[in-house]
Amino acid sequence: MSTEERVAKLSAEVGPVDEEAARQARRRHDTLLKPPGSLGQLEQLGAQLAAIAGSCPPPVPAEPAVLVAAGDHGVHARGVTPWPQQITAAMVEQFCAGHAAVSVLADVIGARVSVLDVGVAHPIADHPRLRRARIRDGTADLSAEPAMTREEAARALLAGAGIIEELAAAGVDLVVAGDMGIANTTPSACLAAAFTGVSAALVTGHGTGIDDDTFARKIRIVGEALARHSPEPGDPLGVLAAVGGLEHAALAGVMLGSAAERLPVILDGVVSNTAALVAAALCPHMSGYLVAGHRSPEPAAAAALDHLGLDPLLDLQLRLGEGTGALLAVPLVVAAARVLRDMATLDDLDPSG
Amino acid sequence: MSTEERVAKLSAEVGPVDEEAARQARRRHDTLLKPPGSLGQLEQLGAQLAAIAGSCPPPVPAEPAVLVAAGDHGVHARGVTPWPQQITAAMVEQFCAGHAAVSVLADVIGARVSVLDVGVAHPIADHPRLRRARIRDGTADLSAEPAMTREEAARALLAGAGIIEELAAAGVDLVVAGDMGIANTTPSACLAAAFTGVSAALVTGHGTGIDDDTFARKIRIVGEALARHSPEPGDPLGVLAAVGGLEHAALAGVMLGSAAERLPVILDGVVSNTAALVAAALCPHMSGYLVAGHRSPEPAAAAALDHLGLDPLLDLQLRLGEGTGALLAVPLVVAAARVLRDMATLDDLDPSG
Repeated sequence: MSTEERVAKLSAEVGPVDEEAARQARRRHDTLLKPPGSLGQLEQLGAQLAAIAGSCPPPVPAEPAVLVAAGDHGVHARGVTPWPQQITAAMVEQFCAGHAAVSVLADVIGARVSVLDVGVAHPIADHPRLRRARIRDGTADLSAEPAMTREEAARALLAGAGIIEELAAAGVDLVVAGDMGIANTTPSACLAAAFTGVSAALVTGHGTGIDDDTFARKIRIVGEALARHSPEPGDPLGVLAAVGGLEHAALAGVMLGSAAERLPVILDGVVSNTAALVAAALCPHMSGYLVAGHRSPEPAAAAALDHLGLDPLLDLQLRLGEGTGALLAVPLVVAAARVLRDMATLDDLDPSG
Repeated sequence: MSTEERVAKLSAEVGPVDEEAARQARRRHDTLLKPPGSLGQLEQLGAQLAAIAGSCPPPVPAEPAVLVAAGDHGVHARGVTPWPQQITAAMVEQFCAGHAAVSVLADVIGARVSVLDVGVAHPIADHPRLRRARIRDGTADLSAEPAMTREEAARALLAGAGIIEELAAAGVDLVVAGDMGIANTTPSACLAAAFTGVSAALVTGHGTGIDDDTFARKIRIVGEALARHSPEPGDPLGVLAAVGGLEHAALAGVMLGSAAERLPVILDGVVSNTAALVAAALCPHMSGYLVAGHRSPEPAAAAALDHLGLDPLLDLQLRLGEGTGALLAVPLVVAAARVLRDMATLDDLDPSG
């Protein structure tokens, strides 16, 4: 089977979420010891968890894991960010060592951390938390040529799916999608524009902080890339290869792999939001498995979530990536499941006495 | 010392938060291993925790407790809600038994639960989690007469403060303000109007679900109460006695007591938001100790938070009370403190190698 055929097979393995379990959850919510609807978004989340698991009450996640996919970007050479590319490799080592924001937040909520080098440009020291699946040393410059070949995009995607298979076998029951890659908001903007049809000027953002000149150049580069490649949303792997990133590809695989295992995936910011566009274009049932952890201030994130019909749980103006915003949403996911499992019903209440 | 003098003494015990510690936290945030400002509201929260504790990094909360203050309301007789008054006592028993939403969410985040009967109208069975400090069997009808005397308001406030003294001595280091009281969104609307100057029509909300006729009546009753009592925001105890609730009084005491111990208090929905207006009117340093856990859809909550200058952490359309929204914000508070304590600094990053 070719690599592309394996991607198609994985996408086809993902079935629809169970709408009957979601209806059961909504009915159960109306019998719980509270005014109907008074737990707001937590009730919708509970119904989604039931739909994903195919049972009500849904299982309570006990083994969350954050998977941080890391890659570099040839478009970095065009000056879309003030950060040197070496930061990607250096930060991956910090994730492994346990000193970064994602490390601290994972510890707060009790999630294990796995880091996937799917295309970092510089060497990275060995570490038990590091999974090596480097497809190439960073993508090519998407403003001048395709970021990668279709074959490379497919292999990066399968690497992400493969890690999930491994984590699920080890008992992981909730997946958090994190990312690292200096310059990766540029391919994110390209992916958002390609799949949602929103213009380059409206999907391009300030990333982790750029000046006005860099911002103007970044918009121009996104526009040039779209004009050069004319990416076709009906060919998701083609879009990914032309204007995406290796970590986007891996995260799309993480999402498909999780859905194939009927596990919920919490999306972080703009990189996982736009990777989700790829996964959803590959698989019509994808978005039912996705939970938007937080609202990134990047406009491409808003365009992607809107396109996917996802309503973020948190809006704390985080713009760090790594999985940080998604990790902070884990307790809400656990709470949504616990409420359905553990709350008493109105029948248990005897107001007479 | 009179009861009112004891309230004044408690209010005077609360000093300003430590702005120098907040500055240290902001400076430290700019040295941590991330782009400056990229943790958004979590950075501001961390600076606030440093200011409250008077140290940077701030202590990491390890013993959160939710205090659910419960009371009934004479205005219930005017038909401001479809729920029978007996529900208050019945729900208090469920909180004690551990079956309600607050019980489940407290368990999810590892908080202990204490329930304070400060003015429930019906009998409640004994339970180790129940603290009895009933001032009277519910307030009087605030649309016809003062809800309570100043003395009763002051006693209820001191009861709330007293519990915090006890919890702090037992090691509690983070306080979550919860409430229960059928009809308590009506006094909440009155308090919001009295302290913020917003009109009855604009502070009155739908509570946990009322029809249009009830809503119109509720607005009329809030307007009548304000016209009858002309509450003076410069006399917070007078406002509380005229149009407040016993649980509002107790929660104002919880807030003052926590601030006196230099502990942060996470506010839940409209009842704790409007109780905070009382506490802030009594003590000029109060709002520095308050964290808005979530945004309640009740308009009085928005008016109160706006008046207090607080920006809520969550917006999940919860309208249950009990402390549920505030409990869900606990992991964010812990995360904000952990980030300041545990993240590496940029100096630890060597991008050359």
